[in-house]
Parts: sequence; structure tokens; C-alpha cells
Amino acid sequence: MNRLASFTLAAAGVALCLPAFAQFAKTEDAIKYRQSAMFIQSQHVGRLGAMASGRAPFDAAAAVANAQVVAEISKLPWAGFGPGTEGGKAKPEIWKEQPKFKELSEKLMAETSKLPAAAGSLETLKAAMASVGGTCKSCHDSFQKE
Amino acid sequence: MNRLASFTLAAAGVALCLPAFAQFAKTEDAIKYRQSAMFIQSQHVGRLGAMASGRAPFDAAAAVANAQVVAEISKLPWAGFGPGTEGGKAKPEIWKEQPKFKELSEKLMAETSKLPAAAGSLETLKAAMASVGGTCKSCHDSFQKE
Repeated sequence: MNRLASFTLAAAGVALCLPAFAQFAKTEDAIKYRQSAMFIQSQHVGRLGAMASGRAPFDAAAAVANAQVVAEISKLPWAGFGPGTEGGKAKPEIWKEQPKFKELSEKLMAETSKLPAAAGSLETLKAAMASVGGTCKSCHDSFQKE
Repeated sequence: MNRLASFTLAAAGVALCLPAFAQFAKTEDAIKYRQSAMFIQSQHVGRLGAMASGRAPFDAAAAVANAQVVAEISKLPWAGFGPGTEGGKAKPEIWKEQPKFKELSEKLMAETSKLPAAAGSLETLKAAMASVGGTCKSCHDSFQKE
């Protein structure tokens, strides 16, 4: 199996929350896990946003590198939102509106998967980041406490 | 550029700490970033360790999925140890013994890159995890506060 195929498998494992894969010893670990993944994501999204908005100079190599981390790390947080892991900044609505939460998480992964190819030029990065940013916002508006 | 090539580029960007890529707004962000990456890594390494030691049943698909996340996430923490980011559980020796720290971080990435291929069978997973665990320990013994 080549590395790309095995990463796709890994992503599928995360997305499906395979029981043996997504075990946390305690709720706090699940919360810390999803917050850790979201924080890493926010750092790289922030750098892309700075370039897209002109607050930082556009650097194609750096943009692609950041985009690729975002594309991969955005697959991780969801395993940390399993049954019984309410807490942190997560609104209880996540566990009450699972289809909507799942739809938004899948939309984010779909949008971030396009980032690496888009990050090579400033114009395409701007468009891709508008979609990613909109998806972040719609999910946070619904499911993240102030 | 295909996705694998761009991920390799991303990894190179992290490893080389490209200035435009590895910018943190403040030291606390760098500390939180490296701790976040290490925590995610610890969760997945913990699941592999449980299988390798017999504390959890071996599940090849789950092992490969966890291994692939470890192989990718192990590239990230190092950008969070830039100049002037002393603090957290990191010993000051990290910044005084940079060649040794760099050597150990590269050894970890080399060992974790072998995990996905090794995780398909319990025997090869055991051997690969012994190497990964030994590398974690030697770096933590030298560079992490109690």
C-alpha cells in the first residue's frame, strides 16, 4: 500500500470513528484532543488568512505548506466529539444535532482538501480561504460557546 | 504537483522552520502549538502501545490508521521550539544543545515514518513501537522537565 492510500485509510478511520481507533481514556482527553487539533488548525489557517488578506506577504511555498497541514489536521478533531464528551467550549447542540454537525465537519474537510492546490497563487488562495473561513464560521456560530 | 509531493514539501517547510511558515504571534502560542501536537501524538502512540503490549486487541486497520497520524503529526512540534520560546515543560537545554535536539527530532520522524508499513502485523508493529518508544524516551529524558 502506498503512503497516500494509507493516509486516506487513516482519514477514513478518523471520520468513521472506528471504536478501536477513537478511544479516549477519559472525557478530558477527548476535549483536550479536539481542542489541540483545532488550535493547530487555527495557527495554520491564521497564516493563510494573513496572506489572503494582505496582512502578510504572499509566499507560495509557505502557503502550500500551511495548506497541506490544514488539509490533514482538519480530519482529526471530530473523533474527539464522541458520545458523552460534552464540555469545553462545545455547545450541547453538537450532540443533539448530530446530522448538522456531521454535515458541517464534512464540508470543512471538503473545503480544506482543496486548499493545497489553491495555495499556489494568491488569487486562488483568496477564493479557497473565503470558503474555508465561511465553513469555520457557520460551524462555530452554531456549535461553539462564546 | 500531486498531494504526496506537496505533503513532502509541507514537511520540509516545518522541518526547516521557514520564517513565513513558522510564525507565532506570541511565545505562549508556540508553547501551546508544540504541546498540542505532542498531546495528539501521545494519544495515537498510546493506542499503538496498548496493541503492541497486548493491553488492547490487535486491529490491523486501526493500527495503520493510528500509525499514519503519528507519522504525520510527528513532523509538527519542532516548529514550536523556535528561538525565544523557552517555557512550559521544555528544559532550557533544548536551546543550548540544538544539534542534539535536532538529531533526536529527526530520529523520531525517521522512526515514525516506518510505523504505517509496520502496523499491518502485530510482530512488525511491536518492533517498530520499540524503536519509536525508545526515541520518545531518550528525547524526553534529556529535554523534558519532570
